[in-house]
Amino acid sequence: MQAYVMRSIGETDVIEKDEPEAGPNDAIVRPTKGLVCTSDVHTVGGAIGEREDITLGHEAVGVVESVGSEIEQFEPGDRVAVGAITPDWGSPAAQDGHPSQSNEALGGWKFANVKDGVFAEFFHVNEADANMAHIPSGVSDEAAVYVTDMMSTGFGAAERADIPIGGTVAVFAQGPVGLMATKGAALRGAGQVIAVESVPKRQELAEFYGADEVVDYTEVETVDAIMDLTDGEGVDAAIEALGSNATFKQCIEVTKPGGVISNVGYHGEGEFVDIPRDAWGVGMAEKDIVTSLCPGGRLRLRRLLRLLDEGKVDPTRMTTHRFDFEDIDEAFQLMDTKEEGIIKPLIDFS
Amino acid sequence: MQAYVMRSIGETDVIEKDEPEAGPNDAIVRPTKGLVCTSDVHTVGGAIGEREDITLGHEAVGVVESVGSEIEQFEPGDRVAVGAITPDWGSPAAQDGHPSQSNEALGGWKFANVKDGVFAEFFHVNEADANMAHIPSGVSDEAAVYVTDMMSTGFGAAERADIPIGGTVAVFAQGPVGLMATKGAALRGAGQVIAVESVPKRQELAEFYGADEVVDYTEVETVDAIMDLTDGEGVDAAIEALGSNATFKQCIEVTKPGGVISNVGYHGEGEFVDIPRDAWGVGMAEKDIVTSLCPGGRLRLRRLLRLLDEGKVDPTRMTTHRFDFEDIDEAFQLMDTKEEGIIKPLIDFS
Amino acid sequence: MQAYVMRSIGETDVIEKDEPEAGPNDAIVRPTKGLVCTSDVHTVGGAIGEREDITLGHEAVGVVESVGSEIEQFEPGDRVAVGAITPDWGSPAAQDGHPSQSNEALGGWKFANVKDGVFAEFFHVNEADANMAHIPSGVSDEAAVYVTDMMSTGFGAAERADIPIGGTVAVFAQGPVGLMATKGAALRGAGQVIAVESVPKRQELAEFYGADEVVDYTEVETVDAIMDLTDGEGVDAAIEALGSNATFKQCIEVTKPGGVISNVGYHGEGEFVDIPRDAWGVGMAEKDIVTSLCPGGRLRLRRLLRLLDEGKVDPTRMTTHRFDFEDIDEAFQLMDTKEEGIIKPLIDFS
Amino acid sequence: MQAYVMRSIGETDVIEKDEPEAGPNDAIVRPTKGLVCTSDVHTVGGAIGEREDITLGHEAVGVVESVGSEIEQFEPGDRVAVGAITPDWGSPAAQDGHPSQSNEALGGWKFANVKDGVFAEFFHVNEADANMAHIPSGVSDEAAVYVTDMMSTGFGAAERADIPIGGTVAVFAQGPVGLMATKGAALRGAGQVIAVESVPKRQELAEFYGADEVVDYTEVETVDAIMDLTDGEGVDAAIEALGSNATFKQCIEVTKPGGVISNVGYHGEGEFVDIPRDAWGVGMAEKDIVTSLCPGGRLRLRRLLRLLDEGKVDPTRMTTHRFDFEDIDEAFQLMDTKEEGIIKPLIDFS
Repeated sequence: MQAYVMRSIGETDVIEKDEPEAGPNDAIVRPTKGLVCTSDVHTVGGAIGEREDITLGHEAVGVVESVGSEIEQFEPGDRVAVGAITPDWGSPAAQDGHPSQSNEALGGWKFANVKDGVFAEFFHVNEADANMAHIPSGVSDEAAVYVTDMMSTGFGAAERADIPIGGTVAVFAQGPVGLMATKGAALRGAGQVIAVESVPKRQELAEFYGADEVVDYTEVETVDAIMDLTDGEGVDAAIEALGSNATFKQCIEVTKPGGVISNVGYHGEGEFVDIPRDAWGVGMAEKDIVTSLCPGGRLRLRRLLRLLDEGKVDPTRMTTHRFDFEDIDEAFQLMDTKEEGIIKPLIDFS
Repeated sequence: MQAYVMRSIGETDVIEKDEPEAGPNDAIVRPTKGLVCTSDVHTVGGAIGEREDITLGHEAVGVVESVGSEIEQFEPGDRVAVGAITPDWGSPAAQDGHPSQSNEALGGWKFANVKDGVFAEFFHVNEADANMAHIPSGVSDEAAVYVTDMMSTGFGAAERADIPIGGTVAVFAQGPVGLMATKGAALRGAGQVIAVESVPKRQELAEFYGADEVVDYTEVETVDAIMDLTDGEGVDAAIEALGSNATFKQCIEVTKPGGVISNVGYHGEGEFVDIPRDAWGVGMAEKDIVTSLCPGGRLRLRRLLRLLDEGKVDPTRMTTHRFDFEDIDEAFQLMDTKEEGIIKPLIDFS
Repeated sequence: MQAYVMRSIGETDVIEKDEPEAGPNDAIVRPTKGLVCTSDVHTVGGAIGEREDITLGHEAVGVVESVGSEIEQFEPGDRVAVGAITPDWGSPAAQDGHPSQSNEALGGWKFANVKDGVFAEFFHVNEADANMAHIPSGVSDEAAVYVTDMMSTGFGAAERADIPIGGTVAVFAQGPVGLMATKGAALRGAGQVIAVESVPKRQELAEFYGADEVVDYTEVETVDAIMDLTDGEGVDAAIEALGSNATFKQCIEVTKPGGVISNVGYHGEGEFVDIPRDAWGVGMAEKDIVTSLCPGGRLRLRRLLRLLDEGKVDPTRMTTHRFDFEDIDEAFQLMDTKEEGIIKPLIDFS
Repeated sequence: MQAYVMRSIGETDVIEKDEPEAGPNDAIVRPTKGLVCTSDVHTVGGAIGEREDITLGHEAVGVVESVGSEIEQFEPGDRVAVGAITPDWGSPAAQDGHPSQSNEALGGWKFANVKDGVFAEFFHVNEADANMAHIPSGVSDEAAVYVTDMMSTGFGAAERADIPIGGTVAVFAQGPVGLMATKGAALRGAGQVIAVESVPKRQELAEFYGADEVVDYTEVETVDAIMDLTDGEGVDAAIEALGSNATFKQCIEVTKPGGVISNVGYHGEGEFVDIPRDAWGVGMAEKDIVTSLCPGGRLRLRRLLRLLDEGKVDPTRMTTHRFDFEDIDEAFQLMDTKEEGIIKPLIDFS
């Protein structure tokens, strides 16, 4: 079969691979729609180290091709969404409420990390009963593919932020994860959602997804602006959706004592992530710092699909570009340069 | 001053009373708008026992008339919302996270219970810095008065129900508290909100406030209908907003194992509230039963007022009738008979 | 192989059965030590309905005989503890934090319920990687077998009771689960643990396991006694470890507003479990009622085994009788009549 | 009256001051026993900036001298413990569950910070009903004074660490707060408590208070040692009780994915507190970082006093030195140099 792979750091190609086979607990899925993630591009760039001919991609929906002997919930022909994170549900970490960390840090992240990803004619799903969900008939593949990562990750950041009804939230950076964090904050009943973003298209989408205020850091001093918007009190919760030391620091500065900093950004550089000591109350201001990695699992996927089915979220507004699978390399190039106002490029496998 | 009082069980009147005075931590407020609560009518009927000439009412907004020596946040002339529940914030129960239970069960409920209520020319607020909030200029008195009880109580029921994003919720009875529980469930990001109600006007409001489905118990068997709507699984959370054994029982029946029953209904009759043993999994199905009494406090009030100020909730759709203070007895009569499709009668003190 | 079975309601026997075989995710274990549970006796009595030739028993440790193709953590010859509850870890309920409810209410309870139990020469363990744990070399089989149910269940009740450091707890009934709930309360740092019990031997064990006070309900009025012991305030948490309407009612009466009633007793009779309406604050006193079913899983088992390995708990004081497997029927008889001060009879399979 | 004050940075003296007076919600207390805290010495050294003639000290018990008009719980002559942190219980932060942050970061910390402390013949207590507790007759003043800060702070760190029964914990540094965090971990039912400390006397006390293992960082590599002790998995929770970048970094390194780092150390230096990026799972390993400031309040004090009254904790083993009030300057000198194996110097005011 054809697979879009990372041949080595910096090099991608479409190559021929053997079709995957399902062990007892697994399924093989033929993707219909996929989305390219910025982290895919980082992977090609070497962010997680060298890989040889690993198939790329972790966001996809498709049709079940075959299932293992122990699979009870799915059969060939089923239309399914597959979590970007596919935990080992029996692992101690999963039993402890942290499935995304199964067996090791970030251990639930398998696609295009420790095994082949989804950008191929077929892909393999471990613990398929637990890691896939049926797509309701009223939900399109294009919408459904957003539950696999973007919605789960962004909403998860908002959930971990423990936002009270009527509370105040600042979301730093409005890429697709940040936009879904903004939507997640709105879904939790926040009273005021402040989006930090400078790109007009993203500002506009932030408002579409529920931002009450947009702070453009190229025009105002971000921390001052947020403190002003909150009558000098700071926010109940700040969500870091960029993965930079600068915004992480601002998150701590704008969060009120007793508030929560929810980090969902991938911090890709530097030896340390810096907590500003004074703003952190010298370690005693009860500004908790929490992190999360895209919650996976059938239950989670079904809950997110329900939101789509009931028309409560429209993630497809983030689809800025569309490519056939044969042109996937163009999507990666664009995602790398972030040109043309790209947010999410959709890959069509049909 | 004029006060609308319960002279004794079953008897109300407007009488002349001395104006209240503020102790060091108190404030005196002149009400501008109030709402009659079904519990006021129950009080007159004897639900909490005999009272003599106690001023009725606990839902009001108004203008600060005077403040005690220790008050720092308010001054005469300020436009304020006052919580229906006015806890003693230094009490052990409040320190334990249960301010509504300060000093005794339901101890935060003082108005028209252990001291004069708000249906008078002036009323007294204990721990005023902690129990009032300024009303934003963009929020009307009529909207603001809903934060004092209905929104706080109904939303509180939804918050205690611990609804996951995309989860399923059933709300039993769509009186004003139930309607606000429905809205609260929607605000928490529920994927499917099922409202149980038979009165057309209330069904319509339930949909306005976020119900995805309405179950009319006069037309279908409620439990079966909810199980069908949830593919036989039951809901993640059920909210009891009526206070009857029948609906409480149904709440436990429709909640999935591991789910939450959030009771906010006042159970006014019978020696026992009945948990159906089998549906409760013989005491081992992890169907938790939680209860709450209207969260009060400045922080809470401000968060709810923020939702009004940002236009995220419009509670005034529940105002079905309007009365001048001098006609308040009519409002009570109507609230008692529940005629004319009454939901909430607004009292105008101007 | 020989198996001790329930032939039908009220009838037990040792019969010959085929040895179980391991599917891909399973293991076959040869038990070395087991414990008879009161629920085993109830099962024989018909509590969960008719069964035909089902092997009894759910508390056992042993040696791995064989493993399925997907098993990574264990190999034949390993000395293991097996949870009485063996959840399906990929099920939605488990993903939701309720593994004991996997797939249906109490669905994690499989041994001697929906499949053969452990009182045989060999028994079958589903999802063995997730549902067994190695026994540390310093821990005896006799001690280890207590982690499979009694410690996990009793401690779990204490954990769900959400006891604050220095808080007050009442534990109703000091059978083996109640004793372990008492120990669990002590382990959570309770300031005052009140055990309700009338049998001298159990009172003595309650004190051994951490009770600060013992209330003998045959000598004093239980509720009054507990209120006196807590200066009239009631306890932060009450644990129901009997499964009777009478003690459940008392639990609610002695719990302070804002406190927790943690039910771990199996309620075997009656249509309803009764909540006393007034003591429950008419449904608004924030007295939460939570329930649980023995937490299972490798992580849980390992944590409990660690307590044994470090000498922090000695459950073997509850072993009042010992029987060889061939005499297991005597153990059941004694457990039924509760004669001879029996608490737990140990079964030796060697 | 005589008061031991900080005249300015680096200068202390006993001076004559006017006796404090009680406002409506206040009490005046005559201290009987006090403890010097390392933070007192830091304050004199300028850690919180310049102060002029502020009375030092925040850990004391004593006898009520007078009370304000609104005080209901106490009267002159009562023997009381006073929290080191005396929150404004009606403040929004307290209403939000963060009383120690009332009105501003660390705003509950008033003694010797924003008002006179306790090292004087008399001291003033704000919101006295909420911030003091009666000392049970069976508890000595010397024991009781430890609840005001050391026990509450150390235990609080353990509580925030969310330690499961049987879980693993590492406590970095065994000064008095670290020792009480070690005891707190033991009180929560930890399965393995690892204390990091090099001073023999403190190692010995750590074992007395519940450490199962002691890691001497002068002899072994701390992180390696802790990973070895936990079979390479890392701990469920790490408690930072020193306030240094080096130990904070180690805390993150030894905590397993999904675990908690509970910071209770005062970070006194540097612009940033450094999170090691890789060990933190690039911001996605769900290693939460939480902080706390000594929980105060009557309820908290009573719960801790109950532990003393029941004989469950003996904090007096930390009293290494005793001084009369007139010799308090010697205690400060010794606390500064940390000579003579000092842990806590007790001040006797009689």
